[in-house]
Amino acid sequence: MVNVGGAQNVAEKLIASHLVSGEMRPGAEIALQIDQTLTQDATGTLVMLELEALGLDRAKTEVSVQYVDHNLLQADNKNAEDHDFLRSACRRFGIWFSKAGNGVSHPTHMQRFGIPGKTMVGSDSHTPAAGSLGMLAMGVGGLEVATAIAGQPVSIRMPEIWGVHLTGALPPWVSAKDVILEMLRRHDVKGGVGRIIEYYGPGLATLTAMDRHVIANMGAELGATTTVFPADEQVRTFLQAEQRESDFVELLADAGASYDVYEEIDLSTLIPLIALPSSPGKVVPVTEVAGRPVEQVVIGSSANPGLRDFAIVGAILKGRQTYPGLSLDVNPSSRQILQDLTLMGATLDLVAAGARLHQSGCMGCIGMGQAPAVGRISLRTMPRNFPGRSGTREDSVYLCSPETGAAAALTGVITDPRNLPGLLDIDYPELVLPTVSSVNLAMLEAPLSAEESAGVELVKGSNISSLPDFDPLANRIEAPVLLKVGDNISTDEILPAGAVVLPYRSNIPKLAEFTYYMLDETYASRAVESRDWGGHIIVGGANYGQGSSREHAAITPRFLGLHAVIAVSFARIHWQNLANFGVLALEFADAADHERVQQGDILVLDDLRETIARSGVLTVHNSTRDEDYPLTHRLSPRQVQMVLDGGLIPWLRRS
Amino acid sequence: MVNVGGAQNVAEKLIASHLVSGEMRPGAEIALQIDQTLTQDATGTLVMLELEALGLDRAKTEVSVQYVDHNLLQADNKNAEDHDFLRSACRRFGIWFSKAGNGVSHPTHMQRFGIPGKTMVGSDSHTPAAGSLGMLAMGVGGLEVATAIAGQPVSIRMPEIWGVHLTGALPPWVSAKDVILEMLRRHDVKGGVGRIIEYYGPGLATLTAMDRHVIANMGAELGATTTVFPADEQVRTFLQAEQRESDFVELLADAGASYDVYEEIDLSTLIPLIALPSSPGKVVPVTEVAGRPVEQVVIGSSANPGLRDFAIVGAILKGRQTYPGLSLDVNPSSRQILQDLTLMGATLDLVAAGARLHQSGCMGCIGMGQAPAVGRISLRTMPRNFPGRSGTREDSVYLCSPETGAAAALTGVITDPRNLPGLLDIDYPELVLPTVSSVNLAMLEAPLSAEESAGVELVKGSNISSLPDFDPLANRIEAPVLLKVGDNISTDEILPAGAVVLPYRSNIPKLAEFTYYMLDETYASRAVESRDWGGHIIVGGANYGQGSSREHAAITPRFLGLHAVIAVSFARIHWQNLANFGVLALEFADAADHERVQQGDILVLDDLRETIARSGVLTVHNSTRDEDYPLTHRLSPRQVQMVLDGGLIPWLRRS
Repeated sequence: MVNVGGAQNVAEKLIASHLVSGEMRPGAEIALQIDQTLTQDATGTLVMLELEALGLDRAKTEVSVQYVDHNLLQADNKNAEDHDFLRSACRRFGIWFSKAGNGVSHPTHMQRFGIPGKTMVGSDSHTPAAGSLGMLAMGVGGLEVATAIAGQPVSIRMPEIWGVHLTGALPPWVSAKDVILEMLRRHDVKGGVGRIIEYYGPGLATLTAMDRHVIANMGAELGATTTVFPADEQVRTFLQAEQRESDFVELLADAGASYDVYEEIDLSTLIPLIALPSSPGKVVPVTEVAGRPVEQVVIGSSANPGLRDFAIVGAILKGRQTYPGLSLDVNPSSRQILQDLTLMGATLDLVAAGARLHQSGCMGCIGMGQAPAVGRISLRTMPRNFPGRSGTREDSVYLCSPETGAAAALTGVITDPRNLPGLLDIDYPELVLPTVSSVNLAMLEAPLSAEESAGVELVKGSNISSLPDFDPLANRIEAPVLLKVGDNISTDEILPAGAVVLPYRSNIPKLAEFTYYMLDETYASRAVESRDWGGHIIVGGANYGQGSSREHAAITPRFLGLHAVIAVSFARIHWQNLANFGVLALEFADAADHERVQQGDILVLDDLRETIARSGVLTVHNSTRDEDYPLTHRLSPRQVQMVLDGGLIPWLRRS
Repeated sequence: MVNVGGAQNVAEKLIASHLVSGEMRPGAEIALQIDQTLTQDATGTLVMLELEALGLDRAKTEVSVQYVDHNLLQADNKNAEDHDFLRSACRRFGIWFSKAGNGVSHPTHMQRFGIPGKTMVGSDSHTPAAGSLGMLAMGVGGLEVATAIAGQPVSIRMPEIWGVHLTGALPPWVSAKDVILEMLRRHDVKGGVGRIIEYYGPGLATLTAMDRHVIANMGAELGATTTVFPADEQVRTFLQAEQRESDFVELLADAGASYDVYEEIDLSTLIPLIALPSSPGKVVPVTEVAGRPVEQVVIGSSANPGLRDFAIVGAILKGRQTYPGLSLDVNPSSRQILQDLTLMGATLDLVAAGARLHQSGCMGCIGMGQAPAVGRISLRTMPRNFPGRSGTREDSVYLCSPETGAAAALTGVITDPRNLPGLLDIDYPELVLPTVSSVNLAMLEAPLSAEESAGVELVKGSNISSLPDFDPLANRIEAPVLLKVGDNISTDEILPAGAVVLPYRSNIPKLAEFTYYMLDETYASRAVESRDWGGHIIVGGANYGQGSSREHAAITPRFLGLHAVIAVSFARIHWQNLANFGVLALEFADAADHERVQQGDILVLDDLRETIARSGVLTVHNSTRDEDYPLTHRLSPRQVQMVLDGGLIPWLRRS
């Protein structure tokens, strides 16, 4: 039903204007030209190593930016050496470098580089946040970012476009976070799979570009390919404040544009919502869990990154004190936002109220510090609360709006912020935000000229190891199910982030030791052994590999001898990452077969190379139980070749 | 030569007014009544466990305060659970609790609790900083803090009093840090052993109380027992600003007071100094190393904790930018100082200049983050640069003043700040500091009433283990020298701090695995084995156990089977800690014997119990080389009993 040539919605316009090949029919493979890329340090070191492996001379994109926002704790030399390496790679390859302290990639990119109508891929699953400006921005594996930097188009399955019609305006004490939590309440973490979410309707006019960032960012939690908003007057206002009005391009849906799927939200009916441990999809009204004692509140992350998200907390707390025994942690999104927050007096209000003001960056959102005590409730304005992502294995993390966080910081218990007027005589603050931001480019290093770049050496500290080489796909796999897992396994569970593990992101052999550590401490050592007798298979449930885009969650199991994952279904980015690194992603034709296979069963896949090249259907034999299960794969002919060759890098080298 | 009853200096007045027993003759054991105690979280968890082991009902001191300033990163649940435990212990035992984010213990204690004329012990080696207010404040092992909280006097050897006569005034670009670096340049890290440093003379009037804090704090690096300043008009001014003028008591040396040792510093002749890697005693003029490339500058810690130390950096950087590729890390000392810094606009200047503003606390000073890349120069305003203390094993840390740090932050190389006017057209800033500080007690929880305390349960998370029990001293030790080390071994080398190790401070068995890890990775595992065949001995050089007061550096080797350390000489606090935990600290009567013993030699100490009780002289037989070495011990009869019983806790239980 896509109206190519007819009335188009915003997503269709973005795709059509960047279409290199393929047909804009949901499910068909399409290739898109990519204008911009975004990498952060936890995934970026591999991207830079991949650029080196690909032999790139200079970035071919309009803008590529490397941010340093994840690995900021610097518990030992590894983080600082990663930063040095990234800076040298940026100077070598013609990439912008945003140094540690400049800020979280998504809001910073939006403020400094986002341009309506452009496409972007990023090696971070929250890259869709740039959809707030009318961009088509997708999280992908690092290797696809690398090839995009090298000028290659990026291939995806054409998604369905899901039109969400907004009416009304948010009531006091309810904010943008509650909009996306409402979407998650309705549709859970798989609701957006295979879709682009496009917001439209009269309610849009009441949402600032930064409000839209909140909503677009956490579209990732619905499993959506991306989220788009039109580039309208709110976007112009935003770019004006960022002193980039000349970058504004209006991008609106055509009159009469239609969508594949429809949704309706009346903003005026929304209430404060909260996601319970340990999934962003377990959303309930705050009132349902009010009164539970809270030990920590964390404000920050790309899910609530705007000046207003901090300023509203400052305004609610102004002249008051955080609850005794409760830690209020504030992570400014960027140097710029901290500067504006300080200028408007909110930094002082937050600090005076007892906030622990941390350095600008992702911090606790990626488990880099701020881990709570076991079982104690931590309320966070962040996008994710997968088990253990906080750094504490038996954590109890809730996700909420800044207003709900501020209420708990004052009362010490989960509190519906709408009760603050009655409880503490606090009126909903009317914020007056500056109309011009504290723009400051000094922590962003521009690319060197081609001439200057040519002479730059990569600075590889002791923590930077080369990418391992992987063999082509075997024609016959006879291997045990070394691990069987259930539904919605996130990449955080496959390969944790956090202060202990994240520093090894540039060192695959060491990093591999932590694979599946949260779910099964024995997996990594058993997997190492499996390599001696021919590798292994993992069996998963539905939505396997949701969450973060980290390609390490494909690379380290592969390094440990993983040949194939057989699952009920896959999350998009991880599915792509598996293919990129030569792991076969297979789906049960009958989901019920997931129940029949047990951990330890020996599975046999025969005639594999010819079979997957010929068709999307194959059969696996369970020799332990003497059963056969029909399987499918969704690899395009291009991807089949890639997997046969052992992954994208060997394939690119060969072709 | 002490003039008891005659003209007294400040140190003598403080001692005389708190003397419980003993004679004020240098070298004699004296017992002092203790008015205040200070604990921080990295040592405090053990102190609280010790209070529990001692069966304390309620603190007997005038003021005891527990600070949370070290373990702030929270990489996993351990830190947060320590904080919960400490808070519950404070509520149980009648102790003030300064919550995470309130600030570094030393400046915060000075601002909120310091009173001229009082005594204090703290389980932190920089406790002497309180000498800036005319207090007698000493770093001791945690167990002695515990007994002080329980109302017991603290025993020390009466030190010599070292009078440092100050004249003149500091020139522009030279500040208090350069005064103490000058003392270290002259006398190195052992120069103050067995001494109290007392500053006097007309130059004092030009040094604020917070300047004196800088100087008193790093007296610890000279090995001094403590440092004292008079309580004069500068102290009154300070207490006025802290809204505590009523706590002011004048405390001046009597006219005609004398000292055991004399020193002369003309402040007007001082120049910017810097301590080279990896000792605070390796001090040279900044000009000698100017031009070396710098990758990191860190401003903060108890060695430069005052508002002016941050404000001066803000003023120098105002309107400028940090050097590309250089990380400027700023750790505010406390919530109060961050508040004042924000009020005066300096926070904005620092952030705008590209500083990474971190949470209030010790941070990189104790290796909790901010670790530099291997071999890259890090300039820090901190007190210590022992090898690896930064968290990076092969680090290159220099210690300097805020002015010297700011200069490097701008130029990217080590730079004499006196050259800034010529290089960058920067005049020495004239700071206008507020005359009244942002006093705010909300992050300090006052002790509960005795009635309320009685019902409080200790909250012990999974990371809190009980104290191990230790056996009485054997009468015969025949054991190998498992480790032989050289001079000036710091407690950082015996038991590292840092982001990886510090979180285990409440868990001795786990912590023990890291003992001597920086110097010899095999020590801990070899020591564990040594327990099966009767334990082991360590041989050390001069000034063994300098630096941090952590009693863990005595407990974990003991836990691993250490019976005795035979060294050329010991640093005071570690010597005491060894005794407190039943390890025999013995000194070579002939320092040259240190050369004769080799690692692996079997040493025999016979008739031990009776010998050490009878005299301070004994002999060790080296059965590998068939040699005898005369040894001495300096244990008082009280301490001998303690060691015989297996340490202070069994001794107290028995007596």
